[in-house]
Amino acid sequence: MIQTILANLNRVRESKALIHHITNDVTVNDCANATLQIGALPVMAHALEESAEMQLISDALVLNIGTLTPDLVDAMIAAGQAANHAGHPVVFDPVGVGATGLRTRSALRILEQVRVDVIKGNQAEIAVLGGLNAVVRGVESGAVDGNVLEAARALAGKHQAVVAVTGPEDLVVSAYRAAQIRNGHSSMGSVCGTGCMGASLIGAFAAGSADWFEAAVSALTCFGAAGERAAEALPDGPMAYKIALLDALYRLTGDDVAQLARVEVMEWES
Amino acid sequence: MIQTILANLNRVRESKALIHHITNDVTVNDCANATLQIGALPVMAHALEESAEMQLISDALVLNIGTLTPDLVDAMIAAGQAANHAGHPVVFDPVGVGATGLRTRSALRILEQVRVDVIKGNQAEIAVLGGLNAVVRGVESGAVDGNVLEAARALAGKHQAVVAVTGPEDLVVSAYRAAQIRNGHSSMGSVCGTGCMGASLIGAFAAGSADWFEAAVSALTCFGAAGERAAEALPDGPMAYKIALLDALYRLTGDDVAQLARVEVMEWES
Amino acid sequence: MIQTILANLNRVRESKALIHHITNDVTVNDCANATLQIGALPVMAHALEESAEMQLISDALVLNIGTLTPDLVDAMIAAGQAANHAGHPVVFDPVGVGATGLRTRSALRILEQVRVDVIKGNQAEIAVLGGLNAVVRGVESGAVDGNVLEAARALAGKHQAVVAVTGPEDLVVSAYRAAQIRNGHSSMGSVCGTGCMGASLIGAFAAGSADWFEAAVSALTCFGAAGERAAEALPDGPMAYKIALLDALYRLTGDDVAQLARVEVMEWES
Repeated sequence: MIQTILANLNRVRESKALIHHITNDVTVNDCANATLQIGALPVMAHALEESAEMQLISDALVLNIGTLTPDLVDAMIAAGQAANHAGHPVVFDPVGVGATGLRTRSALRILEQVRVDVIKGNQAEIAVLGGLNAVVRGVESGAVDGNVLEAARALAGKHQAVVAVTGPEDLVVSAYRAAQIRNGHSSMGSVCGTGCMGASLIGAFAAGSADWFEAAVSALTCFGAAGERAAEALPDGPMAYKIALLDALYRLTGDDVAQLARVEVMEWES
Repeated sequence: MIQTILANLNRVRESKALIHHITNDVTVNDCANATLQIGALPVMAHALEESAEMQLISDALVLNIGTLTPDLVDAMIAAGQAANHAGHPVVFDPVGVGATGLRTRSALRILEQVRVDVIKGNQAEIAVLGGLNAVVRGVESGAVDGNVLEAARALAGKHQAVVAVTGPEDLVVSAYRAAQIRNGHSSMGSVCGTGCMGASLIGAFAAGSADWFEAAVSALTCFGAAGERAAEALPDGPMAYKIALLDALYRLTGDDVAQLARVEVMEWES
Repeated sequence: MIQTILANLNRVRESKALIHHITNDVTVNDCANATLQIGALPVMAHALEESAEMQLISDALVLNIGTLTPDLVDAMIAAGQAANHAGHPVVFDPVGVGATGLRTRSALRILEQVRVDVIKGNQAEIAVLGGLNAVVRGVESGAVDGNVLEAARALAGKHQAVVAVTGPEDLVVSAYRAAQIRNGHSSMGSVCGTGCMGASLIGAFAAGSADWFEAAVSALTCFGAAGERAAEALPDGPMAYKIALLDALYRLTGDDVAQLARVEVMEWES
C-alpha cells in the first residue's frame, strides 16, 4: 500500500485538480487551505444557480453539512448529481448527523439522491448512518453502542461506497477491504477543523483516482504523517499546531510518508 | 472573587459543555476555537429548521448579530426560546447595534422575545441599548454621550440580565453589583474577533453556572489574563498575537489567574 | 509616484476609514484583518435590509463575488448605489467571472447598475470582462488568449474605471495611464485569500482619495512590499507566511516602501 500512497501523493501534487466544496461556514477557510497545501485547488460555489455548473469544470466534490440549511442541501444535491453525471468522485462528511432531525433527514436525502463515493465521519456519525445507537453531541462523537467497524462495513455495502472513520486511529472500509491507519497526533483533536480538512484531502486524492479506497487511505495517511511532522516543532498550543499542520501538508514528501506510514490492510472474509 | 474565578475555570475545563452559537461569518472560526481552547465544545446551527433542536442538546447559547439577516434573527429567537425553556444561559452580543435600523430592531426583538442572561458589548453598543446617545461606526465603538456604567446598570435592571462592557477595562454589571476588570493587553484591540471571542468565553463559563455575574467576571478575567500571557512571547504583530492568545487560553492555569487577576467588585448602593 | 504612495500610506494609517465589504465566506476573516492591519476599519453587512444604510456611514465599498448568491448580489447593488450616491469609492473583485453563467451575469449586472471605480481581478478574470477568451478554472486564472494589458485598457475605458490586474507582476490601468508593480513574493500565490486581501487594501487606500489610479497603485505596492518583508523571516510554509504577511502590513513603514517599491508608470499614447 505504501507505494500506492506515494504514487497518489505525487499525482495530487502534479495534477492541480480542482476540488469543489459545498461546506460549512466555520471551517471553510481551513478546507480551502488544506486543499491548496496538499497541491490541489479549492473552489466553493454554494448557490443552487451555479453549483452544478461549477461542478462540471471541477474534478471532485466535497459535501459537508456542518452548518446546513435546506437551500444548501438543494445546492449539494444539484452539484452531486452533476458530479455523478461527469464521473467525478463525491466525498460526503455528514457532520453532526443524528444530532438533529434536519441533519439526519438531509444526510439520508443526499445519500439517496447522490451516488456518494466516500463517506467520512467520526465514530458516532458513522455509527448513526450504519444503524447503531450512538450519541452525537453537536458535532462531537459521543458514546457508540456496538461495533463501528461492522457498521462501517454495512454502510459501505449499502451505498457501494468507501467509508472512512476518523479518530485516534482511522479506519477506511469498503465492501471488500478495510485499512487501519495509526498515524496522526493527539493535537489534531484539539484543533477545530481537522475533521473537515480530512474530507477535503480525501477529495483531493480521489480526483482522478480509479480506486476510492486507496485514495481515502492515501489521504488520511498523508494527513496523519503531516500531523506527526507538525508536532516535531513543539508548537506552543493548538493554534500554532494548526498553522504547522497545514504547512506540514505543504512540505510533506514521499520520504516522510515512507518513513512514517503505519497502515494495515485486511481483506474481509466473505 | 479570585477563588470563584479559579473554581469556574476548573469547572469549564472539566465539564466539556456544548456551547451553541448563532453568530457572524467573519469571526465564526475564532469563536469556535476560543470555545474549544478554554475547554468547552462549540457547535453552530443557524437554520431555523434545527436551531431550537440543537439548543436542547447544548448547554448554553451565544447570539451575535455581526452579520445578521432577518432569517438568522428568526433562528436566533427560536434557539433562544428553546434555551429559556431548557434553563440554558443565553449570551447576547449586539454587534453594531445603533449603526443600522436592522441591527437596532433585531436587537430589541431578541431582547423582547428571549430572556437574555448576559448582554456583552463595547461601550457604544451598551450605551445605545441603555438609552444614551452614542456613535457606532460599523461595528466599532465611537463617542459616547453619558455615563456608560449607569447605562449598563439601567440595562441590567430592565432585562434582569448581567451586562458586560468590554474595552481597555472591562465592566460587568448587574442590578446589584458591578465589577471592574483591569486585565488584558492593548494588542487585543488590534485583532479582529476578540470581542466575539469574549462572548463565546462568557457562554462557556455560564454553562452550568448558577451565577451569570460571576460567570461573566470569570470569563473576562481569564480572557484578559490569557491576553497578558500571550503578549509575553513578544509576537511580531497582531496575527501572531491572535495565535498566541488562543494558545494562551488553552494553557491558562489557575496559577496564572491567581497571579494576574485584577478584579474589583462593588455592591450598588440602593 | 513613490512620494504619492508614502503620502497615501500615511493617510490610511491616520484616517481610520470604515471599509464596508460584501464578500465571500472563504476569506472574509482575511479581508477583515488585512483592512485592520493596514490601519482602516472593516465592516461587513450583507443583508439587503441594511447594506445601503451601512454604506452611508462607511467610507468605501468592496464587493467580491467569490461565494455569491442572487440575494447577495442584490445587497451588493443596493450598497453600490448608496456608495455612488454618497461619493464613496467602489472596488469590485469579480472572483471566478467566466467560470459559471451566474458569475458572469452577476458581474455584468453589478457593472451595469453600479458605477464601479476600481475593478481588480487576476489575468483571466480581467480578460473575460475585457472581451478576450480566457480559461477561468473555478477561481483560478488559466490560459488567456490575447493581450491582457489591452483588454484592461478597454475595460477601463468602457467603465471609466481603474483596472487592477494582479499576478506575479501587478498592473494598474486607467484610460490614461498604466503602472507596472514589480513587488511581492511568490509565497503570496500559495496562500488562499491574498487576491481578496488585495481588493480590501485597494478599498482602504481609495477611501478619501481623489485619484483611484494612485490609490490602487499605492495599495498594491504596499501589499507587495509587505509580502517581501514577510518572506524575510523565512516562515516554515504558506500558513506561517500568511500570518507574517498580515503582520508585515501592520508594521509596514514609509521607509520600507521607499526602499522596496518598484513601480513604473506610463502614459498611454493617444
